[in-house]
Amino acid sequence: MAGNIFGQIFRVSTFGESHGGAIGCVIDGVPPNIILSEKDIQYDLDRRKPGQSAVTTSRQEEDQVEILSGVLEGRTTGTSLAMIIRNKDQQSQDYAAIKDIFRPGHADYTYFQKFGIRDYRGGGRSSGRETAARVAAGAVAKKILAPEGVRVLAYTLAVGDVRAESINYDVIEQNIMRAPDLRQAQVMIAKVNEVKAKGDSIGGLVEGVVLGCPVGLGDPVFDKLEARLAYAMLSIGAVKGIEFGMGFAAAGMMGSEHNDTPVIEDAYLKTKNNLAGGIIGGISTGEGIRFRIAVKPTSSIACPQTAAAYDFSLQSIQIQGRHDPCLCPRIIPVVEAMTALVLVDAFLIQKTIR
Amino acid sequence: MAGNIFGQIFRVSTFGESHGGAIGCVIDGVPPNIILSEKDIQYDLDRRKPGQSAVTTSRQEEDQVEILSGVLEGRTTGTSLAMIIRNKDQQSQDYAAIKDIFRPGHADYTYFQKFGIRDYRGGGRSSGRETAARVAAGAVAKKILAPEGVRVLAYTLAVGDVRAESINYDVIEQNIMRAPDLRQAQVMIAKVNEVKAKGDSIGGLVEGVVLGCPVGLGDPVFDKLEARLAYAMLSIGAVKGIEFGMGFAAAGMMGSEHNDTPVIEDAYLKTKNNLAGGIIGGISTGEGIRFRIAVKPTSSIACPQTAAAYDFSLQSIQIQGRHDPCLCPRIIPVVEAMTALVLVDAFLIQKTIR
Amino acid sequence: MAGNIFGQIFRVSTFGESHGGAIGCVIDGVPPNIILSEKDIQYDLDRRKPGQSAVTTSRQEEDQVEILSGVLEGRTTGTSLAMIIRNKDQQSQDYAAIKDIFRPGHADYTYFQKFGIRDYRGGGRSSGRETAARVAAGAVAKKILAPEGVRVLAYTLAVGDVRAESINYDVIEQNIMRAPDLRQAQVMIAKVNEVKAKGDSIGGLVEGVVLGCPVGLGDPVFDKLEARLAYAMLSIGAVKGIEFGMGFAAAGMMGSEHNDTPVIEDAYLKTKNNLAGGIIGGISTGEGIRFRIAVKPTSSIACPQTAAAYDFSLQSIQIQGRHDPCLCPRIIPVVEAMTALVLVDAFLIQKTIR
Amino acid sequence: MAGNIFGQIFRVSTFGESHGGAIGCVIDGVPPNIILSEKDIQYDLDRRKPGQSAVTTSRQEEDQVEILSGVLEGRTTGTSLAMIIRNKDQQSQDYAAIKDIFRPGHADYTYFQKFGIRDYRGGGRSSGRETAARVAAGAVAKKILAPEGVRVLAYTLAVGDVRAESINYDVIEQNIMRAPDLRQAQVMIAKVNEVKAKGDSIGGLVEGVVLGCPVGLGDPVFDKLEARLAYAMLSIGAVKGIEFGMGFAAAGMMGSEHNDTPVIEDAYLKTKNNLAGGIIGGISTGEGIRFRIAVKPTSSIACPQTAAAYDFSLQSIQIQGRHDPCLCPRIIPVVEAMTALVLVDAFLIQKTIR
Repeated sequence: MAGNIFGQIFRVSTFGESHGGAIGCVIDGVPPNIILSEKDIQYDLDRRKPGQSAVTTSRQEEDQVEILSGVLEGRTTGTSLAMIIRNKDQQSQDYAAIKDIFRPGHADYTYFQKFGIRDYRGGGRSSGRETAARVAAGAVAKKILAPEGVRVLAYTLAVGDVRAESINYDVIEQNIMRAPDLRQAQVMIAKVNEVKAKGDSIGGLVEGVVLGCPVGLGDPVFDKLEARLAYAMLSIGAVKGIEFGMGFAAAGMMGSEHNDTPVIEDAYLKTKNNLAGGIIGGISTGEGIRFRIAVKPTSSIACPQTAAAYDFSLQSIQIQGRHDPCLCPRIIPVVEAMTALVLVDAFLIQKTIR
Repeated sequence: MAGNIFGQIFRVSTFGESHGGAIGCVIDGVPPNIILSEKDIQYDLDRRKPGQSAVTTSRQEEDQVEILSGVLEGRTTGTSLAMIIRNKDQQSQDYAAIKDIFRPGHADYTYFQKFGIRDYRGGGRSSGRETAARVAAGAVAKKILAPEGVRVLAYTLAVGDVRAESINYDVIEQNIMRAPDLRQAQVMIAKVNEVKAKGDSIGGLVEGVVLGCPVGLGDPVFDKLEARLAYAMLSIGAVKGIEFGMGFAAAGMMGSEHNDTPVIEDAYLKTKNNLAGGIIGGISTGEGIRFRIAVKPTSSIACPQTAAAYDFSLQSIQIQGRHDPCLCPRIIPVVEAMTALVLVDAFLIQKTIR
Repeated sequence: MAGNIFGQIFRVSTFGESHGGAIGCVIDGVPPNIILSEKDIQYDLDRRKPGQSAVTTSRQEEDQVEILSGVLEGRTTGTSLAMIIRNKDQQSQDYAAIKDIFRPGHADYTYFQKFGIRDYRGGGRSSGRETAARVAAGAVAKKILAPEGVRVLAYTLAVGDVRAESINYDVIEQNIMRAPDLRQAQVMIAKVNEVKAKGDSIGGLVEGVVLGCPVGLGDPVFDKLEARLAYAMLSIGAVKGIEFGMGFAAAGMMGSEHNDTPVIEDAYLKTKNNLAGGIIGGISTGEGIRFRIAVKPTSSIACPQTAAAYDFSLQSIQIQGRHDPCLCPRIIPVVEAMTALVLVDAFLIQKTIR
Repeated sequence: MAGNIFGQIFRVSTFGESHGGAIGCVIDGVPPNIILSEKDIQYDLDRRKPGQSAVTTSRQEEDQVEILSGVLEGRTTGTSLAMIIRNKDQQSQDYAAIKDIFRPGHADYTYFQKFGIRDYRGGGRSSGRETAARVAAGAVAKKILAPEGVRVLAYTLAVGDVRAESINYDVIEQNIMRAPDLRQAQVMIAKVNEVKAKGDSIGGLVEGVVLGCPVGLGDPVFDKLEARLAYAMLSIGAVKGIEFGMGFAAAGMMGSEHNDTPVIEDAYLKTKNNLAGGIIGGISTGEGIRFRIAVKPTSSIACPQTAAAYDFSLQSIQIQGRHDPCLCPRIIPVVEAMTALVLVDAFLIQKTIR
């Protein structure tokens, strides 16, 4: 009851701080007989790991996963699946400078007030490092969804005011911004480099998509598919908003515009424009699910700032460090992972219904 | 595991369809010795009920609450608190016309595919009527929060492209739009009446605010306060997006702009501009919590539309009925209720921590 | 988080005190398209209701159930199913005599200490009356299990030192003790009448049986089928112990005796003597599940007793009232209901596994 | 939803098979600022570990715990606490002989039917080895209870028909049976050695006690303290029954005998004989909590037995191996751990109530 468990049937407990012995997760509710190896997990972990490109942090971390239980001879056994990723860099001395400071934009102060104790080593549990455990769990979820024809993906839609002008899923992994538009990706990269040179950071938009989702997933009332996805996305540290389908634009529309015209396709009822984003009444329509999230600029910046100390004296600080000038590229595997966790749950719950 | 229960410590189970015997809820986890009467509940129910003003549906429903358990001589006993609201209008004949039609924008088709059965009487469980039970539960939550100095409120920020230009909490209940700006409220009302005359509907924005929230509520990782609030808001039928603090605008900002300057106020650490919306790292900062939600235009409209029948034949339909031309005024007590449920939970969980 | 919700997939929230407006329950997770009517529920409620025979309390209560939601034209819709049973007798004056007394053997003192408030009207929430809501929920569970060939039953195995000498399921409902042995039932009845004449009460043993349970239900580690059943049974007010298969007798056995010899039956692996009671490693074996519970004598007795008052002064009291001289006959439908709730959950969870 | 998570506020997820890389657990909901080190955990692990005495298995395992997260400089941080214990002996070849056999009394067949796959290496997840993770979690729970004055203990009450004749808590750790009676402990040891010499095993009784439990813990209806304890105890592999206070003997008593006489002690209301075992109405009375569990004889024996193979052919087998001739001594730290988990939960829940 302290926020570290996600899921209803497929329940993921995560643990680990930026500078403890290891981070990882335990998954309760993995169906048996799923073919799974560490390589399946490692692929997504590598997409999330620091130091992978010029637009991400230059910190080098290996993030090697080890499966501790729940897999026998390449297949899941149906029992709990534990994975750990050792922290290579456990020295706390790097953080001496910020030990007595509440960094602006960080959770230093709120954690301290909540718990009466603060893990000053790189943010402790509030560090973005915890998302590696989510990515590991999400990779398992993807392995369950794949044979059902469900594919989850995400991409950088915009960086600052530079926006993708076309959507081509095939090029996402071909550029370091993970944008769906190779040409605009270059403009985004230029923008990020410009910001990075100043020691600053910049926000962006990420779009999430679920392809091949069958009709009927999601539950009435509180566990609407949008509700579960919003829960999942807003649980990612830097996310400040989410919208589905027409999203905030729907606030400016009329019912006669927003109600979509029905279309019959392969014996399924679909709509002409999928304005609802693939979910109606909280339940998947069988069309593509589509949402966008707002990613704030990284709080860790190297510009001079005013900060409060433990004794509440204000002082000017300048934090040196290797931060992500834009979080979007590395947040994408996290968005995919959380989406996959929500979908697997909805899929398994639906098995109890029909 | 079918979506009808909300909450972790303060757990609300709701039930009821638009045309069954009654709707209502059971709350498990109400602290004892809270002073509570049906009048406390009725106040918010009356703010949600149909037929209350010219800009809401003209359906007349009384929505009289009855407390069935959990209260003794005006005080909660700590045992489960059940409330029901009888449905006055249980005749299904009104719905004969739509019985074999999947209405555009409604959950008719997705429910049918999910459950293999569909309650054709006014949408059944997918009807907005279920939100009355949420409002009843939320009224109890508000009674628990009030003595802690926590106040929850919401208001109509925009209708279509008409937006409030000032925020005055005191005028919200003085105009039928529940806008915080009396002058713009008149423009909104004119807009709604224009749309209503055409049998159409229009979307809007609602802003939610929590005043007096202490620092330290919300949990790390998955149960961040934003995540729980997003979950709560997106579980409301017509909501298509949510943003906190600067929200989607943060995507266009730089870290040096979004990191807020610390300010010491009454021995608490606050920020100059509260750009984060009162939550950092998923935990309340002690500043005002502020979020906005996108409300789509009502799907029930009287304009001619194309619909699919059970046999997937397409036909032109025109649904007569008394719908809300704009959902904002009646959704406001629902937004407040869900916010209160999230806050009460966070407040009770924090008691187990410090 | 206050103890009034049972179940994992099939989640039952109950409410109601002995003297409030009504008792009842809401079930979240009822599969759709189950044929169900109030008559199905009423059958078991009548088996639990007071005043049904000479060996139960002479209080007369009708216990008429009303289904408020979740059923359309005789079929469940998959949405939450609410049921209420009105309390006919809401006058609190009967309880004036015990208002300031902590009755021996009752939960008066522990509730008061826990909540800081006490519902003096017949025990409030601690009254056995709450079990009517369980029986209603259990009746729904039975309707789901029946088409799967799973049958749940319970019977009085012993009253004081009078024990059934034969087990014939067919005669259980033919005698007011609900014993499986008509001859010993007469001895039991004589015993109960003797005790009743003195204003006293007597304990007994109830045996629960599940027939037709498929192999594979129950989960590893914490959610073993025995663990869930023990949880369910010990949640019934008067139950003080449970044992499975050989139970406490196993403590005196050797492994070579307790390990059962395998037998192949209809292409299933069974055992010669089912000494384990149908569950091994927490998972059903496909054999009959069998457990026994110890039922304490009713705490409400008319004999003179010493009681403590609110001011902790001790006084001699004699409570007049209509109590059950032996709880066994009326607890049987409750045992069946709770067993059915556990089985339905295990059955629905297994659907997510294979 | 697959049985590997225990608890409501203090939630323990366990993982690990007898022959995987490691076993361990993650605890979500550990209060912050609890002083904790690996030494605290190791003490109880050593009491559970194989090979510790002549009456336990002669397998040698070190069971060295490593805390991976949630502790900073000797204090818990309030974030999730993960612990692992490496399996030293991961060679599966020892189990070649039983690979195609369903061992009598073991969960081999039920797991295979449940999951469609079986971990043949020493029982996999069904192995008693998983209880080491419970003991580790329980040690943390004890550290939280200790400053509240709550002490949890358990001891061997009987082995076969040899029963302790006196109860002295101080001698429990002074004899390898962990009996509370040094003289009878010798008779028990002789009995176990006799059984061991034959390659057989023997059952026993373990009594659990909670001292210093405040009045008011436990919740109404489903989450009665007895229900949660029964759930916890029956989740331990070899346990086949539980009883509280007078337990099964209550079935033979009359209300006038079982209703206990009130006694005032230090301004608390207690009873003369604590016949209810410290819990009334599911809520602790403030007296000692007392329950007994039936422990079956170990299923792993070296005597010749009939077993079924995968093809259901029956064959005589004789399994060599180092088993526990009596499970009682090593189950005691597990009983204590599970009791502590239940108590910590009840204690933290009560903080949300008063």
